[in-house]
Amino acid sequence: MKCRICKREARVALKSHNTAFCETCFLDFFGRQVSRGIESQGLLTHDDRVLVALSGGKDSLGLILELARQGYQVTGLHLDLGIPKSSQLAREAVEAFCAQEHLPLLVRELAREGLAIPRVKAALRRPICSACGIIKRYYLNKVAIDEGFTVLATGHNLDDEVARLFSNTLRWDTCYLGKQSPLLAQEGGFVRKVKPLWRLTEYETAAYAFLRNINIHYAPCPYSAGASFSVLKGLMQRLERHMPGRKIDFYQGFLKRGRPAFANDARQELLHPCSQCGYPTSAESLCQVCRIREQVAEYGEKAAL
Amino acid sequence: MKCRICKREARVALKSHNTAFCETCFLDFFGRQVSRGIESQGLLTHDDRVLVALSGGKDSLGLILELARQGYQVTGLHLDLGIPKSSQLAREAVEAFCAQEHLPLLVRELAREGLAIPRVKAALRRPICSACGIIKRYYLNKVAIDEGFTVLATGHNLDDEVARLFSNTLRWDTCYLGKQSPLLAQEGGFVRKVKPLWRLTEYETAAYAFLRNINIHYAPCPYSAGASFSVLKGLMQRLERHMPGRKIDFYQGFLKRGRPAFANDARQELLHPCSQCGYPTSAESLCQVCRIREQVAEYGEKAAL
Repeated sequence: MKCRICKREARVALKSHNTAFCETCFLDFFGRQVSRGIESQGLLTHDDRVLVALSGGKDSLGLILELARQGYQVTGLHLDLGIPKSSQLAREAVEAFCAQEHLPLLVRELAREGLAIPRVKAALRRPICSACGIIKRYYLNKVAIDEGFTVLATGHNLDDEVARLFSNTLRWDTCYLGKQSPLLAQEGGFVRKVKPLWRLTEYETAAYAFLRNINIHYAPCPYSAGASFSVLKGLMQRLERHMPGRKIDFYQGFLKRGRPAFANDARQELLHPCSQCGYPTSAESLCQVCRIREQVAEYGEKAAL
Repeated sequence: MKCRICKREARVALKSHNTAFCETCFLDFFGRQVSRGIESQGLLTHDDRVLVALSGGKDSLGLILELARQGYQVTGLHLDLGIPKSSQLAREAVEAFCAQEHLPLLVRELAREGLAIPRVKAALRRPICSACGIIKRYYLNKVAIDEGFTVLATGHNLDDEVARLFSNTLRWDTCYLGKQSPLLAQEGGFVRKVKPLWRLTEYETAAYAFLRNINIHYAPCPYSAGASFSVLKGLMQRLERHMPGRKIDFYQGFLKRGRPAFANDARQELLHPCSQCGYPTSAESLCQVCRIREQVAEYGEKAAL
């Protein structure tokens, strides 16, 4: 197969776009999709100070690299979750990558906050994924605000977004449907949050990472097996195989025609500062993270008895 | 496995309801689901004169039998599409079934209207499924009105409805989403249309037909292979296998929370009578069926030259 642009040998075939590209033209295509995703939804400007959440995977490392190449002012933030092996490998991948690419990097360790994920898991005695997500969102937001960033960018790709949309639609969760977007505006104690890779599939971000020689972090989280999200992702992959282009159409159609219908349902919660840490929360006094912190402390005291 | 109700040996396992039934208790369950579907959406009353569209398949034959058992005033209507073999087998199955069950039956032949489907297919030179659907809906509606029925019932089951909903959602077709329902109210020249089996899956209607000894018509339409609809049905089946109960939740959630959001988008077309046959149409002069009839006539004239 030939590259659609320059007619050299193609290296990446894109069925959903009914096309194929050589290495150079694919990297151009990728860059154009990122700019289009940013500009069409007003995600970023070149004046923004952008904090990029770096897990160590292909999406987040590809994102910070492409944003840097496009001249955005980026700094990486890695949260070290304190999970044996997995977290160490992730941190090493992020640190090596940022050093190699001369990208500024902040690292925060959940263990220093008393919230290493294995400890939280032991204390909560319920599935950890939801609590882990709460803690990560809390610290990503907190560091962005404390360090004066104007926006937090995450590496969620089209497959992530489409699986979430599918999940929200199957439940007709009108609150979440009214809010789902590549852009969450700055509000109260929350920094603006953006997903510049929303137009690109997992296959495309993987191809980008491969062609840019990004050493990604392969060790999956040992706690996340069998999540229902992966079932939904698998179904959307099957759909795409049978009907190429359906994933991006589903998501774009939602942004244009679906979400507006649910705009009034987007939860307008009354938020006030957590009595302990000041983080915006809809709870009576303590925010979710401070409550988790209390449970971990109680668990520690019991274990010490 | 034991029947949940009477503890005899179960014959039908229903994962989505996390239960199993013996023959008698399954038939009771089926009847309850039909009544619940009818009553919760206000589809029918016992005063209605119900015309039931009978294709010869398990859904439509099961539907008329169950409605008759529940005391509704039902008459069957079979449209003979004039497709060699397939239509003959379907008609024989319907006639034998209605004779055996002492159910009144009307039969209309599209060939008598000059619209036998193979002839239409030859004249249109495009995929026939859409035109066939238009012609069937036209005559089902026309016979219902001409013969004084108050409502037309079709055998669409939950899988049909969920696949259609999935298709409409993937395209965020807000007009269709605003209208999709087990009940289409009577309006202008259109009779009320209802789908009393909307709570029951294809598996459940098949089990009902089997347990009630309904001889169903197996010959599939020779023109309908590879429709995209069957891909969507397959994906929803996979979803159901991984997450039992999701199909009915998806559909019921839509009726409660999804559809209301699109109510204003439901197409409010201005309809007027077709200048030839009087059928309500949004077209300038001729309705879709009269236009098809013209194309078939032109084709006939050309063929005679």
